[in-house]
Amino acid sequence: MSRTPAPPASAQNGARALVRTLAAGGVELCLANPGTSEMHFVAALDREPRLRAVLGLFEGVVSGAADGYARMAEKPAVGLFHLGPGFANAIANLHNARRAASPVLAVIGDHATHHQPWDAPLSSDIDGLAGAVSHWVGRCRSPDELAVMGARALTAAQEPPGQIASLIVPADTAWRAAAHAPQRVARPRPQKVAGARVRTAAERLRKGKAALLLRGKVLQAEGLELAGRIATATECRLLVDTFAPRLERGAGRVRVERLPYFPEQLAESLQSVQQLILVGGTEPVAFFAYPNLPSSPLAEGCELVRLAHASEDGVGALRDLAAQLRAPRAPAPAHYARHEPLPKASGALTAEACAPALVRHLPEGAIVSDEAATSGLGIGMALERARPHDHLSLTGGAIGQGLPLATGAALACPQRKVLCLHGDGGAMYTLQSLWTQAREQLDVTTVIFSNRAYAILSIEMHRTGEAGGAKAASLFDLANPALRWTQLAEGMGVAASRAETAEEFDAQLAAALRTRGPHLIEAVLPGGVRRPN
Amino acid sequence: MSRTPAPPASAQNGARALVRTLAAGGVELCLANPGTSEMHFVAALDREPRLRAVLGLFEGVVSGAADGYARMAEKPAVGLFHLGPGFANAIANLHNARRAASPVLAVIGDHATHHQPWDAPLSSDIDGLAGAVSHWVGRCRSPDELAVMGARALTAAQEPPGQIASLIVPADTAWRAAAHAPQRVARPRPQKVAGARVRTAAERLRKGKAALLLRGKVLQAEGLELAGRIATATECRLLVDTFAPRLERGAGRVRVERLPYFPEQLAESLQSVQQLILVGGTEPVAFFAYPNLPSSPLAEGCELVRLAHASEDGVGALRDLAAQLRAPRAPAPAHYARHEPLPKASGALTAEACAPALVRHLPEGAIVSDEAATSGLGIGMALERARPHDHLSLTGGAIGQGLPLATGAALACPQRKVLCLHGDGGAMYTLQSLWTQAREQLDVTTVIFSNRAYAILSIEMHRTGEAGGAKAASLFDLANPALRWTQLAEGMGVAASRAETAEEFDAQLAAALRTRGPHLIEAVLPGGVRRPN
Repeated sequence: MSRTPAPPASAQNGARALVRTLAAGGVELCLANPGTSEMHFVAALDREPRLRAVLGLFEGVVSGAADGYARMAEKPAVGLFHLGPGFANAIANLHNARRAASPVLAVIGDHATHHQPWDAPLSSDIDGLAGAVSHWVGRCRSPDELAVMGARALTAAQEPPGQIASLIVPADTAWRAAAHAPQRVARPRPQKVAGARVRTAAERLRKGKAALLLRGKVLQAEGLELAGRIATATECRLLVDTFAPRLERGAGRVRVERLPYFPEQLAESLQSVQQLILVGGTEPVAFFAYPNLPSSPLAEGCELVRLAHASEDGVGALRDLAAQLRAPRAPAPAHYARHEPLPKASGALTAEACAPALVRHLPEGAIVSDEAATSGLGIGMALERARPHDHLSLTGGAIGQGLPLATGAALACPQRKVLCLHGDGGAMYTLQSLWTQAREQLDVTTVIFSNRAYAILSIEMHRTGEAGGAKAASLFDLANPALRWTQLAEGMGVAASRAETAEEFDAQLAAALRTRGPHLIEAVLPGGVRRPN
Repeated sequence: MSRTPAPPASAQNGARALVRTLAAGGVELCLANPGTSEMHFVAALDREPRLRAVLGLFEGVVSGAADGYARMAEKPAVGLFHLGPGFANAIANLHNARRAASPVLAVIGDHATHHQPWDAPLSSDIDGLAGAVSHWVGRCRSPDELAVMGARALTAAQEPPGQIASLIVPADTAWRAAAHAPQRVARPRPQKVAGARVRTAAERLRKGKAALLLRGKVLQAEGLELAGRIATATECRLLVDTFAPRLERGAGRVRVERLPYFPEQLAESLQSVQQLILVGGTEPVAFFAYPNLPSSPLAEGCELVRLAHASEDGVGALRDLAAQLRAPRAPAPAHYARHEPLPKASGALTAEACAPALVRHLPEGAIVSDEAATSGLGIGMALERARPHDHLSLTGGAIGQGLPLATGAALACPQRKVLCLHGDGGAMYTLQSLWTQAREQLDVTTVIFSNRAYAILSIEMHRTGEAGGAKAASLFDLANPALRWTQLAEGMGVAASRAETAEEFDAQLAAALRTRGPHLIEAVLPGGVRRPN
C-alpha cells in the first residue's frame, strides 16, 4: 500500500458538480452504503454542507428509508449504491417505493469507463437491474454530464406523482475534472384535471351506489375534507386501498374505509358499488390469484370512472367536484373519526390485546409505519380511534419495508414520534435498520409482533386446498429456534423490552412513546405453525 | 376467511411434475423463502422425499447458501423465490455465485398467467431481473411445460463450469393439472482441450519466466498434483486468483501463490511473468480502476496463452501437458505445504494474533468460508500452514456472502467442520444466516473480525488523494454504536463468545472447533475510523 496513486484532488470534478446540483435542487439527505467506486462522490458530500449523509448497513435499509423519507418530506432523498450488487440489494424496497409513487433518486457507482470492458469481478448488468425497477435510467459518459444528468434525474424523480430515477455514475466521470456549474432543476407540477371529467364524476355520483377510491395526496388534510363534503352531499362511500402509501387518519379526520386484503372479502365489500370513481389510484385487484377466483373484485355492472390519474392534481379535482355538487362547506360530523379508547385488555398478550394500548398511547402527530401483516388486521381498524396520525403501509408486498420506512420517516420528521408495527418474519429482512435508528438516535418505537411464523403462509396453504406436510410447516415456522428480538435490538444499540401480557405491553408502550429515542418492544403472541405428525 | 377457494388438490399438477423432475435429475436440496404464489411448489416438496427443504429468513441467505452448497457438492441446489422482489434480494449473492461458476437453479414464482395483466402490487419485471444475473432464463406458459422447462433449467445450471439458471413459474402453471412424467435431465460434461493448445502451452513453458494461472476444478487434488509436477519440470510459477471459488490448501497439498488484491502489488507480483498460461480462468485484472493506473497488471510483453477455458476439462489438459513435458511422477517436495504452527500470540487481539490459533486448531478436512476482508489478508497466507482444508472466497465482491456460503457448505458436507472468517461490515448484510445454522444445527464456527469499520473504504479514500472529512468518516465507521455480535448471534439461537485477547481467542476457537454445532466468536480488534476534527 506504500505506492498509492494519490492524484491531486482537482478543484472541480464530476462528483462535486453532481452533488452541488442535487443540493441546489433541494436535496437534503443522502442515504448511503458506498464502496470504492463511490469514493469521489463521498468526498464531494464532505464539501457540501447542505447534504446530510446517513449510513445504512444494508442497501434495503437505504432504499426503504428513502421511501419513508419521501412519503413524509414529499421530496426525494438520494440513495447511494455500490455497483450492481449494491443496487440489487435495494431493489425490493425500491419496488415498494415505486408502488408508493415515492420520489427516489438512486445514484449507482460503476467501474470507470475504461475499466468496464475488462469484466472485473464486480462488473454486472447495472443497466438491466436499474431498468427493471426504475421509471428513468441515465448513464453518465463524461464528467461534464454529471451535473446535467443529475438535474434530469432529480426532475424525473419528481415527475408526479413520484418516480424512481436511477443515475449510473462510472468512477472516472466522478473523479475527472468537470467545468459545469450546478444545473437548475425543474420540478414538474401535477396537471389539472379537465372539467369534463369532473362533470362525468358528478353525474355518476348522483346516480347513487357510488364510491370514491382515494389515493395519493387526497388522503391528506384538504383532500379528506373535500371527500367528506362530497360524501355528505351524495352519500357515496369513501374507500382507500388496503395498502395506501400514506393516509392521514385518527380523531378529527374524515374516515375512509380500508379495502380488505383477501379477495373474497374484497369482492364482498365492493358488491354494492355500481359507480367507482378513481381519484389518484387504479382499479382494485386481488393481491394474489387463486384457482376459481377472478382477479377483479368489482361487482357485475360496476362502472369505473377515472376522475384523476396519479399524475394529476387530485385535490384540485375534488375541489372542483365539490363545487360542481354544491357540497356543504364541511362534512357531516358522522364522517369524522373520534378519539375513542377501547377497554383495557388484560392477561396473555394477543394481537387484539395490543390494540387498546396503541389507541390510548399513540401521541398526536405520530407516524405509523405498518408492516404488522397478519397481526395488524384488527389493529389497523382500531387505530382509527387513536389521536390523529399518518399511516404508512407496505405498498408493494415486498416484506421488510416497515423498519426502514420508519427510519426514513423519522429522518424526515424529527419532531414527530414514529411507531413501527412489524411482523417478525418481515422484520428479519431489514433488521439492520435498527442500527441506523440507534446511530442517529431516531425517535422510533418499534413493536415486533412475535408469532414465530410466516402466519400468512399457513393461511395461504390452507387456501390452496393442499394439506401441507412437515416440510411445508418447516418453511412457515420461525419457532425453532425462536428469535429473541430484545437481544437482536440490543446487539444493534437499541434499548428493548419484552411483553408477554397485555399489562406489560401497555406499560412498555406508554413508556417508549413518552421517551425520546429508539426502543423496541417484542410483543410475544401466541403463534407458531402447527406441525403435522 | 370463511369462504376459502379450496379446490380439490389434483393428483398431478405442474408443481409436482417439476419437483419430481428435479429430484430425478439429482437435486437433493431446496433452499427456500416462499410466498403465496409458491404454495403449490411447497406442497409438491412435501410429497417428494428425495428433496430436503431448508428455510432462509432472507433471500440473500438462500442464494449464498446455494452457492456454498454448489461449490462443495458440485451440483446445484434449488433456490425458491417469491416473485420479483424475493428474487431481487437474492441477486447480490447470485452475482457472487455466477463469478464462482457455481451451478444454481433459481425457481421464481410469479402471479398466475391470467392475473399478470392486472398489475397487482407484487407485479414487477421478473424477466428483466432474472436476465440481468442469469445465464439461462425460462418462463413456463402451461402446466405441461413445467417438467420440460425444469429439466432444461437443470441442464443449463450444470453447463460447465456451472451457470445460474432461472425458471419463472406462474402460479397457475403450478396448480393446474399436468400430464407429464418426470423428464430426464441431461448433464453436460466439460469438453476436452485440443492437443494443439497443449503443445503450445508446453512450448511457452519451456521458454521460462512462465506461470500457470489456475481456476476451477484444477485447484483440487489431482489438478494441484499435476500443476506441481509441471512446475517441477519447468520451474514455472503456480498462481491462483485473489478470489478463487474453491482451493484445496494446507499441509500435504501443492502450494499456489495467491495474487494480491491491490493493483500495484498485483502488477509487481506479475512483473517477471512473460508467459501466462490460463487454465480455467481469465486474464488478471485490477479489482477496481484508479486514476493513472492501468486495468491490466500484466508486464509489458507478457504473452497470454489459454490452455483451457472454464467450460473445458482443465484437469485433463494438465494431464496431457504433464505428459507432453515428461514431468516427473510427483512434484518436488518443496512444492508441498507443511503443517507449521506459528508461535502462540498473546496480549491484545489483532488480526495477525488470530493466525496462530487458526493454524493450530483448524481440523483436517475443514472448509473455510473466507470473507474476512481487510482482517484476512495476513490470515489467508498463514492458513497455508494449517492442516489440509478447502478455502472458499468472496468471488464477486458483493459483500455478505461468507455466512450464507458457510451455511450451504455445511449443508453439503455435514461431516466436515466449517469455519467462517468474516469482517463485521459484510456480515451485517446476511446475518440471518445464523438462524438457519441454529435451526439445522450446522457445524459452523464463525469468527467475526470486529474492527467496527468498513476498513477497506478508509484505505480506498486515502488512495483517491482526497482528505475525507467528517461525513466520509461517518460512512465508513461502524463504531457508533458498536455492534454486539454475541447478542446478535444469541438472538438467533447461536451460542457466542467474545475474545479481546489472543489467549481468549485461542481458547474459544479451540473449544468451538472441537464442539459440534454452530458457534460464533466475536474477535474484538483494534479499529474504528479516525474522525477528522
